[in-house]
This record gives sequence, structure tokens and C-alpha cells, in this order.
Amino acid sequence: MRFYVPTDIYVEKDCVKNHAKEMLAVGKRALIVTGHSSAKANGSLNDVTEVLNNGGVAYQIFDEVEENPSTDTVGKGAQIAKDFSADFIIGIGGGSAIDAAKAMAILLVNPNVNADELHKAPSHPLNHAPVVAVPTTCGTGSEATPVAIITNHKINLKKSIPHRIFPVLALVDGKYLASAKKQLIVNTAVDALAHMVESILNVHSNMLNRMCPEYGLKLWGECKNALIASVAANNTVAQNTSQKAAPIDASLYEKLMYTSTIAGMSIAMTSTAVPHGMSYDLTLSKGTPHGPAVGYFLAAYVEICQKKVPTDVEKILSLLGLQSIEEFEEMLRKLIGTCTVTRELRNKFAAAMKVNRSKLDLVPGGITPEEVEFIYDKSLIVG
Amino acid sequence: MRFYVPTDIYVEKDCVKNHAKEMLAVGKRALIVTGHSSAKANGSLNDVTEVLNNGGVAYQIFDEVEENPSTDTVGKGAQIAKDFSADFIIGIGGGSAIDAAKAMAILLVNPNVNADELHKAPSHPLNHAPVVAVPTTCGTGSEATPVAIITNHKINLKKSIPHRIFPVLALVDGKYLASAKKQLIVNTAVDALAHMVESILNVHSNMLNRMCPEYGLKLWGECKNALIASVAANNTVAQNTSQKAAPIDASLYEKLMYTSTIAGMSIAMTSTAVPHGMSYDLTLSKGTPHGPAVGYFLAAYVEICQKKVPTDVEKILSLLGLQSIEEFEEMLRKLIGTCTVTRELRNKFAAAMKVNRSKLDLVPGGITPEEVEFIYDKSLIVG
Repeated sequence: MRFYVPTDIYVEKDCVKNHAKEMLAVGKRALIVTGHSSAKANGSLNDVTEVLNNGGVAYQIFDEVEENPSTDTVGKGAQIAKDFSADFIIGIGGGSAIDAAKAMAILLVNPNVNADELHKAPSHPLNHAPVVAVPTTCGTGSEATPVAIITNHKINLKKSIPHRIFPVLALVDGKYLASAKKQLIVNTAVDALAHMVESILNVHSNMLNRMCPEYGLKLWGECKNALIASVAANNTVAQNTSQKAAPIDASLYEKLMYTSTIAGMSIAMTSTAVPHGMSYDLTLSKGTPHGPAVGYFLAAYVEICQKKVPTDVEKILSLLGLQSIEEFEEMLRKLIGTCTVTRELRNKFAAAMKVNRSKLDLVPGGITPEEVEFIYDKSLIVG
Repeated sequence: MRFYVPTDIYVEKDCVKNHAKEMLAVGKRALIVTGHSSAKANGSLNDVTEVLNNGGVAYQIFDEVEENPSTDTVGKGAQIAKDFSADFIIGIGGGSAIDAAKAMAILLVNPNVNADELHKAPSHPLNHAPVVAVPTTCGTGSEATPVAIITNHKINLKKSIPHRIFPVLALVDGKYLASAKKQLIVNTAVDALAHMVESILNVHSNMLNRMCPEYGLKLWGECKNALIASVAANNTVAQNTSQKAAPIDASLYEKLMYTSTIAGMSIAMTSTAVPHGMSYDLTLSKGTPHGPAVGYFLAAYVEICQKKVPTDVEKILSLLGLQSIEEFEEMLRKLIGTCTVTRELRNKFAAAMKVNRSKLDLVPGGITPEEVEFIYDKSLIVG
């Protein structure tokens, strides 16, 4: 049994400003890695640059990270970091920005490795530049994991790279959620939920590391009704644009944020399991956002696991304040709706998943090809 | 809110052997720091030296650490480490050995600091040699904290040194408890209990860091009846030496060990509170072992806190499976008995505590001098 989360994690309002000293201590020249717009809109980029300006740390901004960051993007950012002689990387945003920052941190100090080789297992662990993570969504947990999910479009592969890069510092502030679209909050919260469920329903789960998902699931359960209400209100607005979307209570933002961090700590020790494995193809083929792409498979995975580890499933439902898997399934449907794919795609997904041993081998008690089929049948509408 | 436990923690049977690679990666020349006998008796010293021998890491053994290690002992060990050109320190034992190892790790790489200066606040954080911790009791938690409690007899001071030294690696194996005296197991388990209770009843407690004590208290509660039964059986044996002491179920050893590690993680983030502060004088004056010295003050501290943070106290009792503070008090009495001191000593302790701001300031809602007196009145028998 292992417990290992070396990241120094702070969670609080005005976290970046409050921990300027800690950020400035990481390096002298920073590459800031973020997406096109949200870090500007939610104030996080401004908070970070203000600290760097006041602290005399030079920086350059790379704001071209797309959803599901590609090896091309990572390579481009790393080259800018090299040209700038950056000695650390600050990732601001959701999982895409933070994961891209991690991958660039590898390339920055390993000039012999090029971006398209990032998915290759190295012969020995590679060094990396230090990474600071400032999450602005409540799903990734990447601020507290060693994982970076990168897409190589040349070989149609979305997968975690085999390098382990824990951020040295994570500065987590719920206020960045205030300007986020409500469905983005819901989508990322579903990702966090999946991290905790997959961490428990996992062969690597043990009495030591399940401290994190058990604690986090209870917190998530305390947010669930507000998330459901927010989606319901959004849907009403879509039909009647004269109304405003019901906001999620701001006091929940911080809870959603640290629940997401705790969910990250959970998978830092176990890795994700089958639903995450299934999600990548769905995102690659249909562009489904990560949270729903995972969430569509979650209830059926829990149902499969009920036969294998019934006590664990019961515990998950009870921590969430749910009575049954049916309630769990209904909750997810309310949050992320349903997903329709062609028969051809569904069969292609299932065929690929049946040989994905790295995920299948994580199922407690093992999983049969029939059970894989069952998950696809339950989770996707074919049409 | 901060979460920071950078130690790489492994908990399992044959942990030292299983993680030989991780230990060997820490350095090339080790000073092993331990007590006179228990690490030899319980097999931990042999496990460590076998790994070092097989891995070609040179080592020297310093086995002179006493209970409540002194600055003299620490200075002596550090000198041996320097003479041996050690580049890392391995602490094997209870809190005394691991804390002494941490203090030596400071002295080893700071030749300008002498042992009697260890309690002085440094002008800037000092480097230290890496420390590997192999706990053999179920109380200290030192394997997962940055704290080292050292005694300076020249100024009659038992206190944590102001340097923060997290072990890089903790190898935790419940099997080392098998040869321990049952009362030692109970005493150290009471220390772990206090770590978790004091972590929650603490101004530094928050929704992020209380994940550890809340999880650990539930585990501790699952061990409590076995601990009580073990003491009761031991007492019977004391009266009737023809009987053997009832062993604690070996399956509980691992649980007690990782609960202790989780309790260490708890105080790593909040520090201990008033009962620990009160315990040090009792140990200095009467030689009371650390666990009971803390435990005597614990129920009265909980009682004081009930007025300040009633929900937290209720949560603690509920996690432990107890109905009331009276039950909590009775449980501790069964485990560690009572403590009698002279009126003079009691008054001396209380007077010193009333000016110990570093601990008093940790009480949620503050603590009055009358409340300090109340704790002494409830906790110690004067006679």
C-alpha cells in the first residue's frame, strides 16, 4: 500500500496572491501555459502575472492549449520555453492546460526527446522542470496527480504519457469557477466523481489510499443537488431565454474545487479505471467533452462491480447519499444527459476496449468481454 | 488550507524488503539510528541491514537513542555520521529514534550548527540529509511528519525543534509490533489517538486536512476493544503470573500501524495541541512515557472543546464509536490508568502551561487560564 502525493497544495480564496512567496521560490523564468480565453476571463492569469511582476520573475505566456492538448501543441510550447530559457512552467486552466504544462516540463529539460515520443516508455525516469498548477475547473485533479493526458493525432491516440510529473505547488481557488459556464462546472464535477469512484473500484484500492476518495465522495454528495438544480435551471433557460440561469451557490465553488483536488489525489495513487479508458475513444471520435465522456460509462461500470465488490459499491452509494445504482444512473442522466453513437462506432470502441489490458486489469475480480459489451450497451444509445 | 505530506509512504508486510530499491536509491552511505534493543528484537534492524548489504550501501549503526532523545545523543550520532561520511540517515524505532534521526540529518549537513542550538529558530530554512523512517511502534507518526521532539537537559526543555524534516521514504510494517510489549502498543496507540483528536480540535483544522484524522479515527475505533481487552488481560496476568497475556490479534498490527501513520499525516498539517503541550513537562518531571503522558490530558481537553466546537467533538466520538465524553474518558482510564502528582508539580505545570502561547493559541475559540486549571484538575490526581 502506497501513499504518495508530494505536491504542496493550498486551497483558499485569493490563493495565488496569498502564496506568492511559494510560487516565486520555484524559479526565475516562467512559461505560463493556458488556454485561449478562460484564464483571462476568470482572473487567474491576471492573479499569476501580478505575482510574477511584483516578484521580479520574468515570464512568457503560451495561451494556445486546446481541449485535449496535442503533441504538436506541447512541442510548440516547449520550444517557446526553451527559447525563453524558462526554468519552470505554470499551468493555468483545466486538465488540458495543466497536463500540457507537465508534458512541456519534460521536453524543456530533455532536449533529446521530441513531443511525438512523449508516449514512449523511457528506459529510465526522466527529469522535468518544476510545474506550478493553478486549476480553474473542478474536475481534472491534475494539480495533485503525476498524470498528463496528451493526444497524438498522427496515430489517433489519446492517452496518459508514461512520465510521472507531480506539480511542486498547486494553488486552488474556487473563485475561478464564478465565471465558468454552469455546464462546464457540472461536466468537470462529473470527471471528479469518476476519479473517486474509479479509484475505489480498482485493484489498486486499499485501506490507506481510499482515505481520499471516501472523504471526497461525501463532499461531492453534498454538492450533487446544487449541480442537478443548476442543469435543470439551465435547461429551462434554453427553452425560455428571458430567464437567467440559476447560479450555483458561490459557497459551493470552493468545496467543488477541493473535492476535485482530493479526487486527483485519489487517482494519483490508483490511476483511473475502465470508464476513463472508454472515454478517450469517445472524445477522439465525437469530440465529447471529457467529463460527460467518462460519466456516460460510470453507472454501468458501478453495476458491473457490484457483483465483484458489493461492499465497495454500497459504500460509494452511501457516501453520495444515494439508495441504489438506479439513483446513481438517474443522477448522471440529469447532469450530462445521454450519448448517441452509430452502431459502427460503438462496435469499434468495444473491440478496442477488449484488448486494453492496462485498464481492464484494474477491475477488481477481473472483467469478461461480455461485461465490456454490457457497459457499452447500457451506456450508449445506438442510433 | 494546506495539504502537504511529501513523504513516499509504503505500508505492507515485508515492506523494507519489498521496497529495497526505493531505500537504496536514497544514498550511498547510511547512518542507522535506533534504540538499544527493540529494533534488534523485532527484526527491523536485520531487515534494513540485509537490504543495505545486498545493495552495496555502506552503513554504520548508532544504537544509543534513549526515550526522549537528548541534544547530547543527537550531537554524538551526528558526529559519527560525519566521521563516516554518511549521506543519509535511517531511523528505525519509535518516535525517539526517528526524531533523533531527523535532528542528526540537520546537523550532518550544517557543520556550523551544534546540537544545543537545535531548538533555536534559524534565520532561514536549513537543508538536511535525506531521512528514511522505519517505525516499529504505532504511535509516533514521525515517519509522516516534519517534526522532531528533542530534549535539552541543560535547560530542562523537551520540545519540537523548529526545523521541518519530512522523511523522503517511510517503510511501515505491522509485523514489528508482534514482539512489542502489549502496554507499549497501547501507549503508542493512545499517542496516535491524541494526534488525530488534537488535529481536529485545532485552529488549523480545515475541510481539506481533516480528511486524515477523520479517516484515521474510524480505524482507531475499530481497534479500541482489542486494545482494552489486551490491557485487561495483561492486568490479570500481573495478578496471576501463571497466565499468559492475551495477544492483540496480529491482523490488527497493520491497522494500528497505518492508523498511526495517518495520525502523523494529520499533525503534519495542523501540529499537535494542548494535551501534547501539557505532556512534555510530565514526561520531563516523572519520566511518564509519552503516550500516557498525553492521554491523561486528552479527555479533559475534549470536554473543554465541547463548548467551543460541539460538532467536532460529536464527530470525534461518533467516529470512535463512543456515545459520550464520559465513555471516552473511561476508555482512556482502562487503557492507561491514572496519574498522580504532587500539588507542587501540578501547580508548576499549570503555571508554565498558562504562558505556552504556541499551544494555547491552537485551541478553537481560545482557552482561559481557568480552563487550563480545569484540565489539570480533571486529568491528574494530586496526592
